[in-house]
Amino acid sequence: MASLKSRLEHSVTAIALRSYLAEFISTFFFVFAAAGATMSSRKMMPDAASDSSSLVAIAVANAFALSVTVYISANISGGHVNPAVTFGMVVGGHISIPMAIFYSISQTFGSVMACLLLKATTAGQHVPTHAIEHEMTGFGGAVLEGVMTFALVYTVYVASNLRPVSAGAIGPLAIGLIAGANVLASGPFTGGSMNPAYAFGSAIVGGSFKNQAVYWVGPLFGAAIAGILHDNVVCPAPVPDSFRGNADGVGV
Amino acid sequence: MASLKSRLEHSVTAIALRSYLAEFISTFFFVFAAAGATMSSRKMMPDAASDSSSLVAIAVANAFALSVTVYISANISGGHVNPAVTFGMVVGGHISIPMAIFYSISQTFGSVMACLLLKATTAGQHVPTHAIEHEMTGFGGAVLEGVMTFALVYTVYVASNLRPVSAGAIGPLAIGLIAGANVLASGPFTGGSMNPAYAFGSAIVGGSFKNQAVYWVGPLFGAAIAGILHDNVVCPAPVPDSFRGNADGVGV
Amino acid sequence: MASLKSRLEHSVTAIALRSYLAEFISTFFFVFAAAGATMSSRKMMPDAASDSSSLVAIAVANAFALSVTVYISANISGGHVNPAVTFGMVVGGHISIPMAIFYSISQTFGSVMACLLLKATTAGQHVPTHAIEHEMTGFGGAVLEGVMTFALVYTVYVASNLRPVSAGAIGPLAIGLIAGANVLASGPFTGGSMNPAYAFGSAIVGGSFKNQAVYWVGPLFGAAIAGILHDNVVCPAPVPDSFRGNADGVGV
Amino acid sequence: MASLKSRLEHSVTAIALRSYLAEFISTFFFVFAAAGATMSSRKMMPDAASDSSSLVAIAVANAFALSVTVYISANISGGHVNPAVTFGMVVGGHISIPMAIFYSISQTFGSVMACLLLKATTAGQHVPTHAIEHEMTGFGGAVLEGVMTFALVYTVYVASNLRPVSAGAIGPLAIGLIAGANVLASGPFTGGSMNPAYAFGSAIVGGSFKNQAVYWVGPLFGAAIAGILHDNVVCPAPVPDSFRGNADGVGV
Repeated sequence: MASLKSRLEHSVTAIALRSYLAEFISTFFFVFAAAGATMSSRKMMPDAASDSSSLVAIAVANAFALSVTVYISANISGGHVNPAVTFGMVVGGHISIPMAIFYSISQTFGSVMACLLLKATTAGQHVPTHAIEHEMTGFGGAVLEGVMTFALVYTVYVASNLRPVSAGAIGPLAIGLIAGANVLASGPFTGGSMNPAYAFGSAIVGGSFKNQAVYWVGPLFGAAIAGILHDNVVCPAPVPDSFRGNADGVGV
Repeated sequence: MASLKSRLEHSVTAIALRSYLAEFISTFFFVFAAAGATMSSRKMMPDAASDSSSLVAIAVANAFALSVTVYISANISGGHVNPAVTFGMVVGGHISIPMAIFYSISQTFGSVMACLLLKATTAGQHVPTHAIEHEMTGFGGAVLEGVMTFALVYTVYVASNLRPVSAGAIGPLAIGLIAGANVLASGPFTGGSMNPAYAFGSAIVGGSFKNQAVYWVGPLFGAAIAGILHDNVVCPAPVPDSFRGNADGVGV
Repeated sequence: MASLKSRLEHSVTAIALRSYLAEFISTFFFVFAAAGATMSSRKMMPDAASDSSSLVAIAVANAFALSVTVYISANISGGHVNPAVTFGMVVGGHISIPMAIFYSISQTFGSVMACLLLKATTAGQHVPTHAIEHEMTGFGGAVLEGVMTFALVYTVYVASNLRPVSAGAIGPLAIGLIAGANVLASGPFTGGSMNPAYAFGSAIVGGSFKNQAVYWVGPLFGAAIAGILHDNVVCPAPVPDSFRGNADGVGV
Repeated sequence: MASLKSRLEHSVTAIALRSYLAEFISTFFFVFAAAGATMSSRKMMPDAASDSSSLVAIAVANAFALSVTVYISANISGGHVNPAVTFGMVVGGHISIPMAIFYSISQTFGSVMACLLLKATTAGQHVPTHAIEHEMTGFGGAVLEGVMTFALVYTVYVASNLRPVSAGAIGPLAIGLIAGANVLASGPFTGGSMNPAYAFGSAIVGGSFKNQAVYWVGPLFGAAIAGILHDNVVCPAPVPDSFRGNADGVGV
């Protein structure tokens, strides 16, 4: 067991810094596409919130963008692109706490920058924030976001385990597709964030922190339970210790 | 040939219990996304039944969610996620009958729980049940569901056979895509269930068992014929006996 | 060089018969999904011909269904699912003429049966036929269909060549995706058939052979040119003679 | 370091000429599908610019077509299909300047021919040009296009690096998906070109060069920065010098 000091030192090596940069880049482009698709839909149809084709546009953007951004960072940082995934990996002991904090900061910073860029380049279009349907309770929303994040993080764990076999190749794709499916299921109810960095970025640039807790508490709970259940109950086999990134994840 | 007793004992080992849990989790998340996308479309457009973009939303949710839920359970339970698939595997002798019963119970329980969760968290939105178009006969609906389930189970058989080669990697994806294509073809006619557990879960929570038999008889028939045709006519080569899950399937 | 007699004998072995069955099954399910999605869209929106979401529904059904039906027949018959692809393989010398004739008959029969099934089960809904936009000439339509079939058959050739390497795994997916992209590009102009068997099946069941020639001449020309160009100009390297199906194709 | 003369000689070998042909074919079919889908949407809905389902149709066409056209040229030319990608590869030293010029000419020629074919066969339908939203500045548009091209070229670099491992198999898919996600994010703002050849082809056939500079300056800048950042900061490990095409790229 490494001391806190050695762990902190581990967190600032050149390899670790590259991981943070990879997480920044990936989260930036994920949020760019996900929030951008929401803005595009609203630009085209001001009443987009009540149209299924907007839901498809946003869900497909989430699916495609998350698949690719996991893919491009998988070999460097493990392809988390989401503080909830990083937290799920902390719970399973696959990444150290200091490193996880730097991961989360990089992800959140990437999300904020993507939202700022969208606002700046689109001549001041409003950046939409996540919101829960007005009849729903915050608790219901948190449960929904938690359940969906469970599915996402559980898929990350499975993809991570399948890395050595050929099925590992479609791991990043599976992660993106479950995100897209969940957005289709939850669009008009919670928006389908599953990602505290995305929720925070759009909230700070969009200017509304209403129900922000829903998008943190739910996903972090869901992620933790997914990690515990996968490693202890469904797949308790010892995982080999050698992996190629700095942290566990989908590394291809 | 094992005795009934030893087969039953086989059905309650730790490995078998993990398979049931994997089927529960996968069917839960498949039904969550498929039924959730239907609810989202109806929430957005009360007249969703007459809009092509709702059809796309629901079909894409089916395709993405089934691909991923097959993927995450493939290595543990073979990735059935559907009692019709399990029945098709029984017919081909790839899973024992006691184990198949536990699989089906787990799948059905997962489906019911997913529908309950959707109802509870979305402040009492109606969970839509599968229904056949009013001019169609129940027989026509069963034939349609049976033909589509044939395609689904046949694809599972092929994917299962291709496991050792690199094409096996996209097996779970192929299974999800055929489900999505079939939903697009049958949406306004039968809803494109191909899955008795899904039909049962939405019926019990949605409160209507009208035409439920259509969604059991058709798929089970289609699945059985797919298994028989594949193993005896199209691909009669001996399949190696060693596989990694507890039951045949797409195991990656 | 085999004599005609020995070639004919080759065409009726058990392995060859299985290939014809595989082509029948695959073309049946491809046309079922492609024509079914068109019927679903028209059922939902009688004016579907002027709505982009119907175009998306039909294109996605084509893409998903062709990917899967190529995948499930690739190892048995090479995964043609289309007389134009078979013709393109004849031109390149990858399948004998007698066998190609049986392939085409099986494919056309599968398409007709799928259209009949759709008509029978959906209580007499009209099976839509391919049609060219009223301002376009038949020649323009044939060129458009020919160019798109070129892209399809060229992709089949490339996927066939990549079989031994890991990129071969996504060959069936690539074939489906190019079909989907072409349907999106040509939907309101020619309907994007690229497949004489599909055009014939929908015409005979839908009851209109208007412009049928467009859907035969164009694709067969395009397929032949793709085969010649690929094998003689772009990729003239000798292809190994050993393959696993009865005919060249995407065999996984 | 080769002399200019030997480099020029390298650019006209049979292998090099095949690369140019492969880039011509791939860019032709990419632009055919991307511009064709835009024309189809406008044909169906004259007011397509304000409908989310048109955005989905166009984005999916971009994603599917780019995936496949990268796939079919990857082994021959590296699968650039875009002068910005070629420029990004020049910056990283993965292709010589004379060869890059021939690549770009082939790509641009392919794009122009595809737009001409669409115009000719569709009875004179207007070929739509890329345009920036009227409230946006040209600078904002260039930044947006540059950021999206960064994501595209960065993905090409990662896919190129992953070639030797099984994750390389989905490289062409990842490249197509990021293009589709970006089109969803930017559709009503800049149209999401990320490709100077595509912008030029549609401009010359559509007859409007307004804001053309936006679609050249932005993408070339973004591509250059992606190449520099990837090779020098994120992934500075030495890349093996042996590759199978004439130029670096996704070669499968």
